[in-house]
Amino acid sequence: MRRLMTPRFSPLEGGLFSSVSKADVGEGAGELIKAGVDVMAWADPFFPDPSIPASVQTVMAEAVASGLPSHYTMPIGSADLRGVIAGKLGTRNGITADPSRNILVTPGSDSGLLYAMMPFLEQGDEVLVPDPSYPSNFANCRLLGAVPVSVPLRAEDGYQLDPAALEAALTPRTKMVLISHPNNPTGTVFRRDTLEALARFVVAHDLILVCDQAFEDHVFDNIEMVSPATLPGMWERTVTVFSVSKGLGLSGFRVGYLVADDRIMDVLYGGAVNVLGATSTLSQIGAAAALKDETILPAYFDILDRRRRLAHAAFSAVPGVRMQMPESGILSWLDIRALGTATEVSAHILRTARVLVNEGEPYGAEGAGHLRIVHGCFMDETRAVDAYSRIAGALQLLSRDSQLLPA
Amino acid sequence: MRRLMTPRFSPLEGGLFSSVSKADVGEGAGELIKAGVDVMAWADPFFPDPSIPASVQTVMAEAVASGLPSHYTMPIGSADLRGVIAGKLGTRNGITADPSRNILVTPGSDSGLLYAMMPFLEQGDEVLVPDPSYPSNFANCRLLGAVPVSVPLRAEDGYQLDPAALEAALTPRTKMVLISHPNNPTGTVFRRDTLEALARFVVAHDLILVCDQAFEDHVFDNIEMVSPATLPGMWERTVTVFSVSKGLGLSGFRVGYLVADDRIMDVLYGGAVNVLGATSTLSQIGAAAALKDETILPAYFDILDRRRRLAHAAFSAVPGVRMQMPESGILSWLDIRALGTATEVSAHILRTARVLVNEGEPYGAEGAGHLRIVHGCFMDETRAVDAYSRIAGALQLLSRDSQLLPA
Repeated sequence: MRRLMTPRFSPLEGGLFSSVSKADVGEGAGELIKAGVDVMAWADPFFPDPSIPASVQTVMAEAVASGLPSHYTMPIGSADLRGVIAGKLGTRNGITADPSRNILVTPGSDSGLLYAMMPFLEQGDEVLVPDPSYPSNFANCRLLGAVPVSVPLRAEDGYQLDPAALEAALTPRTKMVLISHPNNPTGTVFRRDTLEALARFVVAHDLILVCDQAFEDHVFDNIEMVSPATLPGMWERTVTVFSVSKGLGLSGFRVGYLVADDRIMDVLYGGAVNVLGATSTLSQIGAAAALKDETILPAYFDILDRRRRLAHAAFSAVPGVRMQMPESGILSWLDIRALGTATEVSAHILRTARVLVNEGEPYGAEGAGHLRIVHGCFMDETRAVDAYSRIAGALQLLSRDSQLLPA
Repeated sequence: MRRLMTPRFSPLEGGLFSSVSKADVGEGAGELIKAGVDVMAWADPFFPDPSIPASVQTVMAEAVASGLPSHYTMPIGSADLRGVIAGKLGTRNGITADPSRNILVTPGSDSGLLYAMMPFLEQGDEVLVPDPSYPSNFANCRLLGAVPVSVPLRAEDGYQLDPAALEAALTPRTKMVLISHPNNPTGTVFRRDTLEALARFVVAHDLILVCDQAFEDHVFDNIEMVSPATLPGMWERTVTVFSVSKGLGLSGFRVGYLVADDRIMDVLYGGAVNVLGATSTLSQIGAAAALKDETILPAYFDILDRRRRLAHAAFSAVPGVRMQMPESGILSWLDIRALGTATEVSAHILRTARVLVNEGEPYGAEGAGHLRIVHGCFMDETRAVDAYSRIAGALQLLSRDSQLLPA
């Protein structure tokens, strides 16, 4: 029945009739996990180790025992969680938000991201997307009939967005700029001057900014984390996408939230039941508990700061691998063009090191010859470091074969 | 920024700048619940009483204590839950489904319903929708750029779908038929002969059928519950939408599932991470436990069978109210045209009986002058019957004022 589908959907492949390389399609990584492979291809902190904090477990256990989370919250999210989120937005993002007018809880930030884009995009509209970035940033445009236009990020610029590249990509059909900030997969935190230039561009050309801040919670080296919605002229034209998946290590809860001006939010509230339904009540209770516990983020910050250094030391020591120190989060981004294609090198790592990593191509044209490795896996640091070593060992073999190393 | 939105979204209202009557928009019923009003306007069984069965609580408490539901499942749903669903589809629906090729778990059936429609609908396509039916059946078409075309259901036909009315609504732009079966709000279970005629129509005109079976679990009076996907020629052109919200009384879990032929499912699997993300891991664990516990449905069946009789006795006794005995589920559908408009009568019930019920208009043009009352509220039968009495008392007052009753 593909012939009855729209051209936006009919090209999609779920792995049932062809092999697909994306780890998140069909059974994808599921089969490999069963076969004992270490999966470092999910942006899922501490996977596969237990990681619900004790304080959150207590609150959720009480909720289960009450028997009450069988019931819906309002489609826009529970008032309690929205209140907690408003507090966090004030303290940590510098955003003054009314919980009943500016916040919409979503069942994870994936559906939140698509919903943030949906009201604005018409067939043929163009969306400027930094390249590389999260695969959905490109795919979502196509699903909505719009055209993603790549704006290259260069290693030599530290993967900062180049205002001149934005201007060069602008056409009369440009409707939106869509960024992940910090960026997935590069971990880049866009600096204030970059974002101020972006804001001037967005305002000058009457565009919408969708800014996915799923990775905002762990920004290292005292780099300033600026929310573009706080910049002049941007509040009324920005939809910001947040998540508890990454920072709080609660990806399985599927809780995200959108923040926007009430004139945008009136429309998003109006369609919430149709597009999103509502978010799991128990997950909302757990997310509120996690946001309230101020000990979680600092503890994870220290763990993940150490991990990125260990991962960087292991991977960047291999001749032929180029990698910058991650500025945020849980992701390593490796340029392995000297060793082979991403398909070749990831297959070699899977075979030799028994680790699944991400090929770079789904992250955009600039992702060719790159790998994304989720170094924030495992709660157990020994296991994480062992996996880094096995990956590095596999890369070393390729490096030697490529005569980049003396045999 | 409405001016930058598409015409599909810009008319939506979330209640921030105008008052909206739908209970599920903005804070909607939330404010009334806080004010102590009984809400019988959510299709949420047993609301607001505790209703997670003990067996399900045990499994969920263990999962929380393990710390593992912090992690994602595959976007298509956990293999365990899909396996349990496949068993249920075989036993209860007569559908032979491969858990890895025909089943997609969704974060509730609302997002599942939209996703089932999304691949097929192009700007201007027409969708035949029985009227009255679930408001999203009309609204989702508009959000996707399609046009919902009402196919009236008549009280004198017992709200069965009339094949002649389908034929009359057909145009060259017709792409899909979208039904809720059993129907929300009328509770109607479409009979085998009706569905066979529908199937012949769908096949003859090369259409897609989307069939929302959220209310399939409680069909009374030994009426046969036929899944249209099992009828000749229909498997390859039907997407069936299911839920654990209604039958198992677990609406707050937000777990639904889509079932379709693998050629359709390949596309739905391919876009799952973009459109849906994944479903709460803990909710999936709870849903699997609930589906495995074969004592839940029969117990709820008996409760809800009694409730519909009590509700019918209370409401249909009021002069000026016309109501058929519900064939399924938790919903009463009242024709109150003799007493006033739905807006007037529902406002009177809210004021006099302190109960929120649904106005009929959002359910389609045929819903004018009707009310939907969720008589399946409350675990406590005394409280339920008290609410029915208060509603009936409020209706009696109107009836007397309308001189339908001697003063």
